[in-house]
Amino acid sequence: MGVIIERATGSVQIVEHSTSSKLHHVEGLGDLSHASIVFSRDERYAYVFGRDGGLTKLDILNGAVAKRIVQGGNSIGGAISQDGDLVAVSNYEPGGVRIFDASSLELIADLPAIGTNNIRSKVIGLVDAPGDRFVFSLYEADEIWIVDLTDREHPETIKFTEVGRQPYDALITPDGRYYIAGLFGENGMALLDLWHPERGVRRILDQYGRGKEKMPVYKMPHLEGWAVAGDTAFVPAIGHHEVVVVDLRSWGQVSRIPVHGQPVFVMARPDGRHVWVNFAFPDNDVIQVLDTESKKIIRTLKPGKAVLHMEFTPRGEKVWVSVRDEDQVQIYDTHNFEKVTTLPAEKPSGIFFTNRAHKIGL
Amino acid sequence: MGVIIERATGSVQIVEHSTSSKLHHVEGLGDLSHASIVFSRDERYAYVFGRDGGLTKLDILNGAVAKRIVQGGNSIGGAISQDGDLVAVSNYEPGGVRIFDASSLELIADLPAIGTNNIRSKVIGLVDAPGDRFVFSLYEADEIWIVDLTDREHPETIKFTEVGRQPYDALITPDGRYYIAGLFGENGMALLDLWHPERGVRRILDQYGRGKEKMPVYKMPHLEGWAVAGDTAFVPAIGHHEVVVVDLRSWGQVSRIPVHGQPVFVMARPDGRHVWVNFAFPDNDVIQVLDTESKKIIRTLKPGKAVLHMEFTPRGEKVWVSVRDEDQVQIYDTHNFEKVTTLPAEKPSGIFFTNRAHKIGL
Repeated sequence: MGVIIERATGSVQIVEHSTSSKLHHVEGLGDLSHASIVFSRDERYAYVFGRDGGLTKLDILNGAVAKRIVQGGNSIGGAISQDGDLVAVSNYEPGGVRIFDASSLELIADLPAIGTNNIRSKVIGLVDAPGDRFVFSLYEADEIWIVDLTDREHPETIKFTEVGRQPYDALITPDGRYYIAGLFGENGMALLDLWHPERGVRRILDQYGRGKEKMPVYKMPHLEGWAVAGDTAFVPAIGHHEVVVVDLRSWGQVSRIPVHGQPVFVMARPDGRHVWVNFAFPDNDVIQVLDTESKKIIRTLKPGKAVLHMEFTPRGEKVWVSVRDEDQVQIYDTHNFEKVTTLPAEKPSGIFFTNRAHKIGL
Repeated sequence: MGVIIERATGSVQIVEHSTSSKLHHVEGLGDLSHASIVFSRDERYAYVFGRDGGLTKLDILNGAVAKRIVQGGNSIGGAISQDGDLVAVSNYEPGGVRIFDASSLELIADLPAIGTNNIRSKVIGLVDAPGDRFVFSLYEADEIWIVDLTDREHPETIKFTEVGRQPYDALITPDGRYYIAGLFGENGMALLDLWHPERGVRRILDQYGRGKEKMPVYKMPHLEGWAVAGDTAFVPAIGHHEVVVVDLRSWGQVSRIPVHGQPVFVMARPDGRHVWVNFAFPDNDVIQVLDTESKKIIRTLKPGKAVLHMEFTPRGEKVWVSVRDEDQVQIYDTHNFEKVTTLPAEKPSGIFFTNRAHKIGL
């Protein structure tokens, strides 16, 4: 099953991907621009993080809102703990992280993001990590924090300072080991090895960033969209019409692949053989597919205006694509690249399938 | 959710791992010694492959047998296609593969395993691969076959001959790219790159096998139990008290780790940091945990007599362990290694959680 965000109307569609059909339509979720979702470990509930600070617990079996609170002024994302007991929300306003009981949505912990510079910072790049930990970055404070909730009453926080200027988004590798934050204020990225927090944060990929001649950035790429295939990651360049290929063992740049526009999401098909890329305005009517072995573009598709997101079915035989300005979700066969079917949707953006419940960092 | 095989009584338990409880008990599944399971893509149905050739479609939501057929004389395992439409069963007697409609269990294709030596061979190591393909090995014929069911009416078979003497079990890497068969009749393993079947089968790991001074083998290790962590695989040695460490890029042996007994299953925790190992008789009352970074044993547990199988919860915070002769399933916290709870079960063997539905090759 899955949930499709309809960003303009504050509604969601609940769908299933065995026969590609809509099951429910649910309204009243507030401001869903830039909304994201995590799932309960039993895949029954979706936690929807809205831009207005709303946290909605959605019962996807019954197609109804189970509970809804407004927990902050401006939130940007969230995560669920490894054991499924805790839901964390990262807030821009007031800057910090709030942690809730996944069942009742009662507040368990409130962590204001006040860095060593004494500024209350926006929080970005919040992810879950093995061992009931959450990891996140402080935009104005240039810090990365790990909070460990093994002891619910006494969360322990480890803080890393001066990680680099203005971390703007982050990701965790699929095994939950490496946390990587992109830096808006300078080139390079900040890497934290969660198996060895004692080694601190180090800088990688010095070539990565806007570069000397800063191009206008139409949309910041989503780092969650890092595609990992074997030893290699495929990463959207910032402001450049390129996908950056990174060696995951040395954390160095291998090459750069020229593509159609500024990439936003770079997503690996679950078997890692292809990578699908969508683009920022004005090139956002196109998707390109790269072969991870030859590092070449093997297909260019034109789904229509404003391709915002792509989600693969769990074993990767199909991909669902939200095409906002066409009010469509298009479903493609990933082997022959043919469009299988189209579902109507009201200004669709994010698509989230429930198998994310079983993955670290999603 | 999940299913636990009770091998002696031909019954299964249906369980859930959010609160670790039993939901249903279902009987009448025939001979379940060495039984295995795959799940429908919506996680509602389990297909149980019994030793007596029985194929049972189990409705795990309602805790009832939805359909049961006896499709062969002696079957050993099965697989479900990437799109979820087809279930394949590998048979010892009569040697071959039969492919059924996952919904109705109607026969779609029957592939007798007659090799170039004109002998009807036992089939082992049947797995699914991306693109609605199944891959399997012929024990007496020394062959590996790929069957492609893109066109249901006309399955296409590619055959690889002289792959090595007596392939006895096989696995596919988690990305669905490499198919690897263990050889009983000689040392080494047979490797097929499914991205490049035109390159044929090549031999790897020449040191792998029983060796010159053949030790008695109490139980053949399960190759499905290959633990992949980063670039490295941890593989049970045959007949030796060792776990073999393999470099997945060169396919060479890195080292061998001495362990308590003859390993049977070597399973990586989902984050890849630890590997859990159980052993063949007479050492089958012990589990050892290896650290994948230091390659050292960090914990030895004694769950009790006849530890047969281990299954991690999807994100790896717990592991369920079947202890046959104690009539118990024990559940451990994988961070502090403490036993969390014990469930009674009648001679439990395999434990299968439904998140397998979303994985390639499981």
